[in-house]
Amino acid sequence: MKNIPKGFRLGTAGAGFRRPGRDDLGLIISDQPAVAAGVFTTNAFKAAPVQIAQETLRRGPMVQGVLVNSGQANACTGEEGLRNCRATLDMVGRAAGVDPWALLPMSTGVIGDQLKMDLWEKAVPALVNSLGGRDAETFTRAMMTTDAFPKFVERSVTLSGGMVRLVGMAKGAGMICPNMATMLSVVLCDARVSVNAWQDMFRIAVARTFNRVTVDGDTSTNDTVLGLANGASGVDALGADAALLEETLEAVLGGLAYMLVQDGEGATKVLHIRVIGAADVADAEKVARTVGHSQLVKTAMYGRDANWGRIVAAVGRSGARFRSDDVQVRLCGVELFRDGRPVPGNHDAKLAEPLKQRDLDVEIRLGTGEGEYTLLASDLSHDYVTCNADYRT
Amino acid sequence: MKNIPKGFRLGTAGAGFRRPGRDDLGLIISDQPAVAAGVFTTNAFKAAPVQIAQETLRRGPMVQGVLVNSGQANACTGEEGLRNCRATLDMVGRAAGVDPWALLPMSTGVIGDQLKMDLWEKAVPALVNSLGGRDAETFTRAMMTTDAFPKFVERSVTLSGGMVRLVGMAKGAGMICPNMATMLSVVLCDARVSVNAWQDMFRIAVARTFNRVTVDGDTSTNDTVLGLANGASGVDALGADAALLEETLEAVLGGLAYMLVQDGEGATKVLHIRVIGAADVADAEKVARTVGHSQLVKTAMYGRDANWGRIVAAVGRSGARFRSDDVQVRLCGVELFRDGRPVPGNHDAKLAEPLKQRDLDVEIRLGTGEGEYTLLASDLSHDYVTCNADYRT
Repeated sequence: MKNIPKGFRLGTAGAGFRRPGRDDLGLIISDQPAVAAGVFTTNAFKAAPVQIAQETLRRGPMVQGVLVNSGQANACTGEEGLRNCRATLDMVGRAAGVDPWALLPMSTGVIGDQLKMDLWEKAVPALVNSLGGRDAETFTRAMMTTDAFPKFVERSVTLSGGMVRLVGMAKGAGMICPNMATMLSVVLCDARVSVNAWQDMFRIAVARTFNRVTVDGDTSTNDTVLGLANGASGVDALGADAALLEETLEAVLGGLAYMLVQDGEGATKVLHIRVIGAADVADAEKVARTVGHSQLVKTAMYGRDANWGRIVAAVGRSGARFRSDDVQVRLCGVELFRDGRPVPGNHDAKLAEPLKQRDLDVEIRLGTGEGEYTLLASDLSHDYVTCNADYRT
Repeated sequence: MKNIPKGFRLGTAGAGFRRPGRDDLGLIISDQPAVAAGVFTTNAFKAAPVQIAQETLRRGPMVQGVLVNSGQANACTGEEGLRNCRATLDMVGRAAGVDPWALLPMSTGVIGDQLKMDLWEKAVPALVNSLGGRDAETFTRAMMTTDAFPKFVERSVTLSGGMVRLVGMAKGAGMICPNMATMLSVVLCDARVSVNAWQDMFRIAVARTFNRVTVDGDTSTNDTVLGLANGASGVDALGADAALLEETLEAVLGGLAYMLVQDGEGATKVLHIRVIGAADVADAEKVARTVGHSQLVKTAMYGRDANWGRIVAAVGRSGARFRSDDVQVRLCGVELFRDGRPVPGNHDAKLAEPLKQRDLDVEIRLGTGEGEYTLLASDLSHDYVTCNADYRT
C-alpha cells in the first residue's frame, strides 16, 4: 500500500460496537518481527489492553502487530476485561497466522462495559481479509471516536543505505460518554534499528512531542503510544543515520501532537507556550503547564482577549523561581509585560488580527537562568462545555 | 449599627472608579486598636495593597481599620502603585483621625492601571462622613465586582462573660476585564482575645474553609482575608470560650466560603468532594483537588451526567497511593463504583432528580488509611466561558 513502510499490512473492519456502517476495528501485521516501544498512561486505573500491552513488552521487545478497536475502552472491567482482551488477541492472531501474544492491543470508547465478544467474532474474518488493502487514513478513521478529522503523518528519509519510511497514526481527545479523552497512537517504521536505539529514540521523541501538549490536563485510562520498527527496508540506522531517523521520528510525532491539540474538544486555537530563562527546565515546565492549564488564560485566548493579567497571574502561582520585576510576556510577538508592569500602548489594536489566527505564540521570559520549555495547549470554548456536558435530563 | 460587632464603624462611598452611581469604597474603623490576622495570596505577583498590608502586619498585630476599593486592583503597578496605596491610607487616616499606618488596604478590579488619585481625593470626605451609618450588606456591595449577590454572615455567640458578635464580609470570584478572579474578605469580632490566640484560630479557620474551596484553581494577585478582634465587648475568650469562639469563627468563614463557590463564575452547582480512607491527609487533598479541578468532572456535573468514569480517571491520575480495586465512588449517595468496576444498575434514573439540585455530594473512598479531606468546588458551565471570553473583536 502506498506510503506504508515496507513489510507492514493494515486492515480495518466494522464490528458495530457503537455505530453501524463504519470501521471500528484496525489491525497492523508486520511480516517479520518488529522492535517495539511503548509509552502508556500513568493513570492508576489502567485499561485491560494497557495492562496486557505492558505485560507483553515486559516479556520482550519483538512483536508482530497491533490490534485496535474504538467504541469500547475495556477499562474498569476487572478480570473479565483481561480475559476478553486476551481472547480477542487469540482469535485475531490465529486468523492472521501470527502468535497472538505478539500482538499489542489498544482500545478507546465507553469505559466500564465488557467487550462485545459476539461482535468481535463476527468481524474478525473481514478484518484479517482486509490486511494489505488499507491505507493510513482508513486505519486512522477506524480508531476515531469524536475526532473531527483523521490524524496521520507519512514521512520518508534517505539514510546512507537507502530510503526508510515512517507513518504515524493517532486518535485524539475525542469523547464518547461516559468516558474521558483517550489518546491512541502508533508509528510504523521500516528502518533496521537495534532494540535499545529504537526504544531510546522513541522515548525521547514522545517526551518532546506528545508529553508537551495539553487539552484539558486529564490523563485517560487508555492512553497509549506505540512504535514498531521492522527493518523490512533493509536499511540500517546507525551513527549519523540514527540521528537522522530520530529527527524524522520526532517530526512525525510532533505533527501528530500538533493535530491532537488542533482537534482538542471545542478547540479553536493552538497556544504555543514558550518559557525562556527559567532557573531550570523543571521550572520552565511548571510555568508552561500552569499557563496552559489555566481556565482563565484558555478562555481569554478563545475570546481573542490580549489578557496579559491572566498570564502573569498564572506565572505567579506556578511555584517557579524568579523575581517579578524580571518577567516579560509577549503575545503574538507583541510585548505586553515587562519589569513587573504592563507595557504602555494600544496593544488591542495591534493584536486584533493576530488573535484571530489559529496559532498563538505566548512567550514568557523569566530572566533567571537557562531553563526552557515549550507546551502546546488548546483554548477553552463554549463547544468544549457543550461537548462535555451531555445533558441527560 | 445593627448586628455589627461593638466598637466597629463601617462606611462606604462612590468614587466612580468604573461605574457611576454605586459605592466602590469601603472603610472600617475600630474605635480601639484591634488584634489583626491576615492570610494573603501566595502568587509571586502581589498587588501593592497586599505588599503593604503584609508589611503593616509584620511591624505589629494592632490595627485600627481596613480600607477597601473595587474597580482598581493596584496590581502590577510597580513603585508608583505602592506610593499611591500609601497616599490613600494617608488621606483616609488623616480624615478619619486614625494613624494611617494602622489601616490595612485591600483592592480588587482592573490590574495594571494606576489608582485614580483625583477620584480618591474627591470621595474620601463622604467615605469618612458615612462611618457608622452602613451595615454589612452595604459594605459588602461596595467590594463587589461581578458578584451575583453580596456575601456576608452575621453571628453572635454567648461566652461565659457575655455575648460577642462576629460579622464576615466577602467578595468572590467576580471578574472585570482585563484581570483575574480576586477574593477579598474581612471578619470583625468584638471578643477580647490575645494576639496569639486570635492569629492561631484565624489561620486554622481559614485553612479549613477558604483554603478548601475552588472555582477555577487560579490564585489572584490580590486575594486577602483579614480578621480583626477589638475586644470592645469586654468579653474574654479564654479556655473553653476560646474553643467556642474558634468554632463560631469557622462557621462564619465557612459560610462565606460556601457562598464564594455558589457564586463562582457561571456556577450552577456546589460539589462537596469528600475523600475518605487515604494514606494520609496530603493524599486525600491530592485526590480532592484533582477531581475538583478536572474540567471533565466539572462539565459532567454541570450536565447532570452521573459520569463516574471521569471521577475515577481523575482519582487515578492524582498521584495518591491506593489499590485500584479498593476504590469506591458515590455520587449523591448512590454507589457507582466499587472493587475497580462500575456497580451494575440503572443509576441514571436514580440520580436524575438529585443531579438537578445545587449541592452534589461526591464521596471517594480509597480504602488505604485514615486520611480525609473535603473540598467545595464549582462546576464548569457555558456561562463560565461566556463570562471569561470577552470578545473584543
